[in-house]
Amino acid sequence: MSQFAFELSHRDATTSARRGVFLTPHGPVQTPGFMPVGTQGTVKGVTIDQVAATGAHMILGNTYHLALRPGHETVRKLGGLHGMSGWEGPILTDSGGFQIFSLNAINNVTEEAATFRSHIDGAKVRLTPEHSIEIQEALGSDVAMVLDHVVALPAEPGVVEDAMARSIRWAKRCLEAASRDDQAKFAIVQGGLDTELRVQCATELSSMGFDGYAVGGLSVGEAPSEMYRITAATCPALPEDKPRYLMGVGQPIDLIESVARGIDLFDCVMPTRNGRNGLAFTDLGKVKLRNAVHREDTQPLEQDCPCLACRHSRGYLRHLFIAGEMLGPILVSIHNLTYYQRVMQGARDAIEQNRFDAYREEKKRGWGLV
Amino acid sequence: MSQFAFELSHRDATTSARRGVFLTPHGPVQTPGFMPVGTQGTVKGVTIDQVAATGAHMILGNTYHLALRPGHETVRKLGGLHGMSGWEGPILTDSGGFQIFSLNAINNVTEEAATFRSHIDGAKVRLTPEHSIEIQEALGSDVAMVLDHVVALPAEPGVVEDAMARSIRWAKRCLEAASRDDQAKFAIVQGGLDTELRVQCATELSSMGFDGYAVGGLSVGEAPSEMYRITAATCPALPEDKPRYLMGVGQPIDLIESVARGIDLFDCVMPTRNGRNGLAFTDLGKVKLRNAVHREDTQPLEQDCPCLACRHSRGYLRHLFIAGEMLGPILVSIHNLTYYQRVMQGARDAIEQNRFDAYREEKKRGWGLV
Repeated sequence: MSQFAFELSHRDATTSARRGVFLTPHGPVQTPGFMPVGTQGTVKGVTIDQVAATGAHMILGNTYHLALRPGHETVRKLGGLHGMSGWEGPILTDSGGFQIFSLNAINNVTEEAATFRSHIDGAKVRLTPEHSIEIQEALGSDVAMVLDHVVALPAEPGVVEDAMARSIRWAKRCLEAASRDDQAKFAIVQGGLDTELRVQCATELSSMGFDGYAVGGLSVGEAPSEMYRITAATCPALPEDKPRYLMGVGQPIDLIESVARGIDLFDCVMPTRNGRNGLAFTDLGKVKLRNAVHREDTQPLEQDCPCLACRHSRGYLRHLFIAGEMLGPILVSIHNLTYYQRVMQGARDAIEQNRFDAYREEKKRGWGLV
Repeated sequence: MSQFAFELSHRDATTSARRGVFLTPHGPVQTPGFMPVGTQGTVKGVTIDQVAATGAHMILGNTYHLALRPGHETVRKLGGLHGMSGWEGPILTDSGGFQIFSLNAINNVTEEAATFRSHIDGAKVRLTPEHSIEIQEALGSDVAMVLDHVVALPAEPGVVEDAMARSIRWAKRCLEAASRDDQAKFAIVQGGLDTELRVQCATELSSMGFDGYAVGGLSVGEAPSEMYRITAATCPALPEDKPRYLMGVGQPIDLIESVARGIDLFDCVMPTRNGRNGLAFTDLGKVKLRNAVHREDTQPLEQDCPCLACRHSRGYLRHLFIAGEMLGPILVSIHNLTYYQRVMQGARDAIEQNRFDAYREEKKRGWGLV
């Protein structure tokens, strides 16, 4: 009996948006849902209580980063990622596959393994599918991602197809290497911007019985419309009864457009990275807090936002950034994470009310995208 | 009828330690008490809820810094320091006098004003006693400090005496310039390491009817024993029925030794500055969290500490510092602020039980100072 289940409770009347809940040993994840990124075992600048208060159900940790520092065996000794970080809800770990892409200049992929240089000390890091699973089992996440071969786009068709085929073989090796029943395994669909390859990959992976399916290799510089096209083509080739996760995405509009195409889960560093730089997301678009216009502005970022930042004025938030105070990045990270969760809560409500398309239009108007 | 009162409830049987409460328009301050420093309108890295959770009653803001950035008129428009920061408890603001000392290389003091260059853009800043009060009234703190003339030690006797005498004249000008009944005025005793000058200064200021009295110009590099000697000589020359505040002090042992000599209030950047650098205060002395010995340590900094940091292991805290994660400085700042408040709570309890000397010995043993 699997400790994981995905229960779909509602489908939107006019889009492919789905409302569901993904059950894990550390609690339920309401979908569509957004996972804050905690690369090194912490969502940057935010305590676990504050992360929970944003409304997040599940957070993400990075296998590659944690394997290098503090080391997955150290994480295991400190109680696994849950015990170490104190986060009691579900955790998903990526596989290191994205680092094959992002550390591209120095990497080398063979059928056996990916090899790249540590961003910390330049040491050679060799990662096999089996090793990725071993690390994730030490980390003790609720969801382990398979190791995939991500390539930079645009790429020659042969390169994309080769990486896609390798990703399928690696997914199989991950499944065979896995030994923990309390850890779900999610496959990752590759295939670049070629819908035929994507569908082929999705179909093959679907036959292998994973607990969930991700769309990977997107949000790497392609146009949003390309990403939406691939997502729309891929989702129908995935099992209806498993969660679908679009990796590393994205802007609020990307989340909404992808939910409309059948995606259930997202993760992205955008809310915290932008928050640290003083860029806040709101229903009326992005606010650059360093701008002089906010100097004496007594209004909060958003009137109806319950977050810690929004009990302060924009003028105060601006001051914190201009003065180089840590509290600025902290508060705006919290606001942005809260905003993403509010957008997703709104999406879940809209799906249940069969009005997701109206919700999308409403959001786009606010963001100035129509 | 003053909106301020200081009520002494108990005196320790064998030391000069006092237990009291300082009443302000924004609530009571239990004494002996420690004020976290919020130089630029924020205790660095810590939200106001987290500051309150450490047990702090009153925080400090810096007149010089806030006058330069965001500007005191901007602070006024954003609701004063209380409205802007969201801190609902009492706030004390310093006067800018310490910057006359700390920006010494470029400053110039006349009878009329102190002039120094902005640490931000090098612009000339001219500060008179009247201007210091005007700024503090715009900031809206509960307690305004008079502008004093702080000199670097050691100094020629004539220089110290001259600065002391000027500090008295400036204190009088501050008192005359003040217009807000809801803002207490605290005088500052100067006089270097000369007890006669200190007593003379304390006596003259005491006759002027301030709401409280500070011992200034210490913790500027002199030996702790010198600071204790001056504090012990100065306190008896101050009114019994007003709070006594030792500015910018210090290490936990300095707080304890100064409470024993009759001091009621303290402020210092040490808990947050050290916290940001990974140095934690504990009952068994300081802990350098970056040390490799903590790598796989599953113990918290202190078993009985209720702070956010102490629900995590030392191993996790070390990881956060080694990985350069903001959460490390945040958590250890919170721990250190909590530790300082716990030391002061212990001091208050010990005074009420007439066992302050035993408390001091107990703490010194733990800190390895006996």
